[in-house]
Amino acid sequence: MTTSFADRLIAGVREKGPLCVGIDPHAAMIPALFGEASPEAAAKWGVALVERCVGRAAVVKPQAGLFERWGAKGMAALEEVCQAATRAGLIVILDAKRGDIGSTAEGYAEGYLGAGSSCPCDAITVNPYMGVDTLEPFVAVAEREGKGVVVLARTSNPGSKDFQQQLIDGEPLYLHVARSLAPMIARLRGPQTGWSGLMMVAGATGPAEAARLRAISGDALFLVPGYGAQGAGARDSMAGFVQRANGLEGGVVNASRSVAMPDGAKSATSVKDWERAIDLAVTAAQAELAEAARA
Amino acid sequence: MTTSFADRLIAGVREKGPLCVGIDPHAAMIPALFGEASPEAAAKWGVALVERCVGRAAVVKPQAGLFERWGAKGMAALEEVCQAATRAGLIVILDAKRGDIGSTAEGYAEGYLGAGSSCPCDAITVNPYMGVDTLEPFVAVAEREGKGVVVLARTSNPGSKDFQQQLIDGEPLYLHVARSLAPMIARLRGPQTGWSGLMMVAGATGPAEAARLRAISGDALFLVPGYGAQGAGARDSMAGFVQRANGLEGGVVNASRSVAMPDGAKSATSVKDWERAIDLAVTAAQAELAEAARA
Repeated sequence: MTTSFADRLIAGVREKGPLCVGIDPHAAMIPALFGEASPEAAAKWGVALVERCVGRAAVVKPQAGLFERWGAKGMAALEEVCQAATRAGLIVILDAKRGDIGSTAEGYAEGYLGAGSSCPCDAITVNPYMGVDTLEPFVAVAEREGKGVVVLARTSNPGSKDFQQQLIDGEPLYLHVARSLAPMIARLRGPQTGWSGLMMVAGATGPAEAARLRAISGDALFLVPGYGAQGAGARDSMAGFVQRANGLEGGVVNASRSVAMPDGAKSATSVKDWERAIDLAVTAAQAELAEAARA
Repeated sequence: MTTSFADRLIAGVREKGPLCVGIDPHAAMIPALFGEASPEAAAKWGVALVERCVGRAAVVKPQAGLFERWGAKGMAALEEVCQAATRAGLIVILDAKRGDIGSTAEGYAEGYLGAGSSCPCDAITVNPYMGVDTLEPFVAVAEREGKGVVVLARTSNPGSKDFQQQLIDGEPLYLHVARSLAPMIARLRGPQTGWSGLMMVAGATGPAEAARLRAISGDALFLVPGYGAQGAGARDSMAGFVQRANGLEGGVVNASRSVAMPDGAKSATSVKDWERAIDLAVTAAQAELAEAARA
């Protein structure tokens, strides 16, 4: 794969909108239609969600932890979902929040971003706590394979204040993280759009923080969690986006529960009813985000 | 399981010594004897290592990332190794460095520390960057199941200086992390020994930092990486341990390459030769650590 991840993501967003559909197989999210909560049901449900996204969303984000709940069988289900999404031409951001020292990070990087991965994805989320050297193996594989790396900067949970917001020389930790990524942002810049596939997580619950991140990381695409069920609105979710010809641009906005478990989906008694509920929710979220991007 | 993880770990350390044997299936660490580098060879090699540890070491630490290199098949190999170690009565610290917001963290916590896990372990390493609320699900399951949680504080890699050592109100981030863990340390305290199964990673490459961590976290057991191949000596590895009746105590010291790939092991042409090389390396490391603990 030689096209850049950032250019592919932006092409998808310009065509379909900035929604990223989270695939989070909580037991409570899998309707009985797909069977009792199990790795098999999670795979079936995840693949069905992938099919609903085709033509409606450019990007999906499977949540590794909820598949790993079932061990190796859960990982096999995750692989099925990632393979289906890749075959369908969707962009896959694997939300795994990995991170470790050099040689182990190489294992994660090759295992997920490497050519011929059994769990194919276009980008993976990583944790910066251990230091920039622990991110390098991910960036090296991403550079070689035209993939992306998504670094946690300012997350959407209440505990993001515990360490990420602590001041170091007058500036919060998450900004120090962002500053230290500048050379990696340059390495994963897409030649067509100028955006970088070294993405950062900038939670929708912190619009002011997202704007500060944007001010020092002009070209990094953002992955924005927290829209929908976590409480943030569409406009706040785009606080770190920038004005371009067609409106606000600068990343993807994730929704999980609100699009994958809308009213009527959990209790659907037929596949057709479930499909209708999901299609409606995905389309409504894209429309809401599109309107916010134009405003 | 109702005995506390901390008490079990300390009982094992008092009997066998503080060595923790890292099970890191780098392609370069698996001798040809076990077959070409593959999940099957990693499982075979890992189980054989587990057998060498019986009677010689109390604790093993499989490295998830190097198994995940092979996707779901690699995870199945990891499960085999963890199951074999558990059956053999060894204490298993799964080095997975996981971490995520509440409901996802619950997935990881139940998947690894929960009763009936297909990947049984006694403790798991977790990353604190996202905040204390993201550690809570791990601690809750550990409390319920008599397990442990190992939080990254000061890691052994050069990049540990990038963020962990940055000063917040005059004190490095890793100490802020440690301070914020105090209530969790109290919750996982073992009634017999007083040590806590809320462990912290305190790299052997930073003895001064380990001593500072100990000063503010009196009862937390430490997991010390960096001894052996990463360059730290036995005495530096115990800089965060404290004097007790029988010498220094306070955690486990991990060695991976130096005990799992000693001279003669990689090139061994018979299983017996390989076994002899491993037995010698494990015994030598325990002896070196025991001497340092008495000094």
